[in-house]
Amino acid sequence: MEAYQQSKLNRIKRGANRGTYDVEKINTILDAGFICYVGYIYDEKPITIPMAYSRREDKIYIHGSTANRMLVSILESGETSITVMHLDGLVLARSGLHHSVNYRSVTLFGSLKKVEKDTDKTDILKWIVNQMVPNQWESIRPMHQKELDRTLIVEFTIETASAKVRDVGVIDEPEDYDLDVWAGVVPIKQVAEFPISDEGKPKNMEIPKHVLDYYEANK
Amino acid sequence: MEAYQQSKLNRIKRGANRGTYDVEKINTILDAGFICYVGYIYDEKPITIPMAYSRREDKIYIHGSTANRMLVSILESGETSITVMHLDGLVLARSGLHHSVNYRSVTLFGSLKKVEKDTDKTDILKWIVNQMVPNQWESIRPMHQKELDRTLIVEFTIETASAKVRDVGVIDEPEDYDLDVWAGVVPIKQVAEFPISDEGKPKNMEIPKHVLDYYEANK
Repeated sequence: MEAYQQSKLNRIKRGANRGTYDVEKINTILDAGFICYVGYIYDEKPITIPMAYSRREDKIYIHGSTANRMLVSILESGETSITVMHLDGLVLARSGLHHSVNYRSVTLFGSLKKVEKDTDKTDILKWIVNQMVPNQWESIRPMHQKELDRTLIVEFTIETASAKVRDVGVIDEPEDYDLDVWAGVVPIKQVAEFPISDEGKPKNMEIPKHVLDYYEANK
Repeated sequence: MEAYQQSKLNRIKRGANRGTYDVEKINTILDAGFICYVGYIYDEKPITIPMAYSRREDKIYIHGSTANRMLVSILESGETSITVMHLDGLVLARSGLHHSVNYRSVTLFGSLKKVEKDTDKTDILKWIVNQMVPNQWESIRPMHQKELDRTLIVEFTIETASAKVRDVGVIDEPEDYDLDVWAGVVPIKQVAEFPISDEGKPKNMEIPKHVLDYYEANK
């Protein structure tokens, strides 16, 4: 499958020229982040919860305590959606109307399943930790069984999705280009600062290569 | 009012030690950002839309086209919530379970109203633009009436809210501190890069002081 099918659920109406249903483009946006916004309905209200995630093929994995109200609720109702957004710039135009931001965002709809098998759960937790910092899982101690038992992992299969990307400069009304008003883009990005070692033993340990690599790639 | 009242809607259950209902703390988190995540229900599914916002006292203002499906829907149903999150760090622990992130997040519940008066709408658009970059509104051309006419502004009055903040180091199991595993925090922040002037006239104009000030404060 190369593009998600359009339906009334995922079809982009506002700014359709910035929309895409392309699977590879959507996956690239998902793989550039590790925090998603999960929607659920509580007491008739839509509530959004930020969560860590990992993607593998057409699956998104999220996790929490077995008592997590939101995870239990979406597993029961099957009703959720997942949004990921990266902010890339402030678009400062000559008029208020044309102010905007540059961004890459994705909205996903799909079905939900609880992951039951311990070996699957362990693999998925590894993917989630490594989506945050590559190779981090390999440096820590293995999960205890009792930790695994109280971790709820939800597998979300993407059934339909859309992305919106704005990555161009200022677009003003033709007549406004003559005004004595500065316009431009302020690029925005998320960066890492130098790792701070925890008190105790790590103070005397070198920061591992994979953490320094993460810092170098994101500073 | 100094703290929002707790109800089943806003009471924090997971990680209650990190929760607060303090109005001033919640406002400080809101004022540190300009992108919020607005929830709405479409076809029984909770969907989350990122939007620019501004806060004034207990009001959050969001805007869009008069045809914006989400804004029209939440005005009709009254059912929404607003989430803001700032990511501050990666918490790399000795065990998978204690991996976490440092963050400041807020969830707001309240009532909705369409803003009708043109003078109010203009004031609010100024606040929204200036929440992104202070003093930016004062440097651009005034709104045309037809632009104002096709802009829908929604006033959200905060009725109850909660915040969650994690801003500490690694917290591991006592016995894990003896392991030969490095642990620590990688601070994360959102930064601005040097402004890129638009083609044409602005190429020959100096970047205005308020834009350079924004860059200096956020680089």
